[in-house]
Amino acid sequence: MKISALGEFGLIDALKQYAPVSKAVIKGIGDDAAVLSFSKSKYLLLTTDMIAQDTHFTRRMPPQGIGHKALACNISDIAAMGGVPSFAVVSIGIPKNLSVRFIKDVYKGIELVAQAFNVSIVGGDTIKTDKIVINVALLGEVEKEYLVTRDGAKAGDWIFVTGPLGGSLASGRHLSFSPRLAQARFLVEKFKPSAMMDISDGLSGDLNHILKASKVGARLDDASIPRHKGISLFHALNDGEDFELLFTISPMKARSLMDWQSRKKSFYFYPIGTITPDVKEKINSKSFIHF
Amino acid sequence: MKISALGEFGLIDALKQYAPVSKAVIKGIGDDAAVLSFSKSKYLLLTTDMIAQDTHFTRRMPPQGIGHKALACNISDIAAMGGVPSFAVVSIGIPKNLSVRFIKDVYKGIELVAQAFNVSIVGGDTIKTDKIVINVALLGEVEKEYLVTRDGAKAGDWIFVTGPLGGSLASGRHLSFSPRLAQARFLVEKFKPSAMMDISDGLSGDLNHILKASKVGARLDDASIPRHKGISLFHALNDGEDFELLFTISPMKARSLMDWQSRKKSFYFYPIGTITPDVKEKINSKSFIHF
Repeated sequence: MKISALGEFGLIDALKQYAPVSKAVIKGIGDDAAVLSFSKSKYLLLTTDMIAQDTHFTRRMPPQGIGHKALACNISDIAAMGGVPSFAVVSIGIPKNLSVRFIKDVYKGIELVAQAFNVSIVGGDTIKTDKIVINVALLGEVEKEYLVTRDGAKAGDWIFVTGPLGGSLASGRHLSFSPRLAQARFLVEKFKPSAMMDISDGLSGDLNHILKASKVGARLDDASIPRHKGISLFHALNDGEDFELLFTISPMKARSLMDWQSRKKSFYFYPIGTITPDVKEKINSKSFIHF
Repeated sequence: MKISALGEFGLIDALKQYAPVSKAVIKGIGDDAAVLSFSKSKYLLLTTDMIAQDTHFTRRMPPQGIGHKALACNISDIAAMGGVPSFAVVSIGIPKNLSVRFIKDVYKGIELVAQAFNVSIVGGDTIKTDKIVINVALLGEVEKEYLVTRDGAKAGDWIFVTGPLGGSLASGRHLSFSPRLAQARFLVEKFKPSAMMDISDGLSGDLNHILKASKVGARLDDASIPRHKGISLFHALNDGEDFELLFTISPMKARSLMDWQSRKKSFYFYPIGTITPDVKEKINSKSFIHF
């Protein structure tokens, strides 16, 4: 059987047999980041993302944007757990004929994001490849009481996203998006969502991950799904690489969040539906799949 | 300027301008692993290595061996700092036409090494690429008093390696080597080397890294450099991917180490030369360079 027949999610499931054993692993494969024992009050978070030329970007795209994306999507993963990023290691596969200028600009893009989000680049690897490949592994930490995973959504919870969706790849936004770290920290400190993740594969597919992990269903109010200008509902539901946060929150907290944001305008959270007890209420997904 | 003209080490130097700023970074880019603040008694270690098809392996090589190498070379890095590995994340770039069997065997190879060295695989990423690429990022920890870096070699110190060198790529040993974790832990607990690293690019080039970091020179006793069967001195000096440890140690400790190993036979450490005060005494290197 070829990978293309199995698909990425099938592959991840097939690989879960190689699950961690250590008691220090609070949460392993299957959330935005791994959760590891650290100290009395905090967990360590660890995540990794690989992006490759002609899969996630092309050589015609701005190299700083490529570097930006490589680190920012990892910061988005740490944010989605409620945590704060700290240290990153960066591996880059570089074709022989690439200019030093190009690769320096990739690093520049990484460094600008690192500075903006207080991340230290502490190591890495550079190797020769036919096409550009960048892997970032990012450490972070989270106070135990602020940790949010995918499996806590309850029937009746409201579903929110942090911003308009769709068209990220076509518009180039996937090379310049701002990971929603401040929003995530605000939420875990003030309103503690019941489940949270970042939207990397598309709202529909990613919401299904929360539904599956939480053993619940969902109903979306299509009209209230925020979309970027000129984006159809279909694309808002199914396009990948938006890196907005998707979270669920109890009705009581949802109402106080709505009340808060009617007064303050620093962030805006969009209610788009509700969690239901019926696990058969999945979202019809044409999610962005890399295979 | 093309990467091929600059070379890997030139590139790493060029990128050091993007150095870490956080005070929590005890040691950043430039050693086998980054050293990070962790607890009163311990440091956190973080390292990453990327291997790619047709640079480090081919599709004709056994997939389990490829997986073995991907994790084992990271464990070797943690060992070289005196530490113990704990958690890993694994990213794999997979060509569309690759069989699921192949990729499962790659993971199997990773998992067998993980089990043997008590490492938990806690997450990862799978993406589509034209050729296979594997990145492992590995966390570890080390007691503060056991940390060994590259910059502590002193004039008069003896230079040791943990095993015979050369021919790793030609023989296939690079797909089945055992990282010298037990030897490293034995050394830091009982004899505390002054500097240590693993031999990934070749003895000559890697020793020069220690000399440069420690601001010293070295003289090797060519006849005492242990070689694999049928391997010339040239290849023992310059072949990469041996993953033996290279360390320096004070003359007094060196003599008690020699005394110890004349009685016990559990490990064997090979003295191959001495550190000198003359920084101009570099090793003539034809080291394995990936660019």
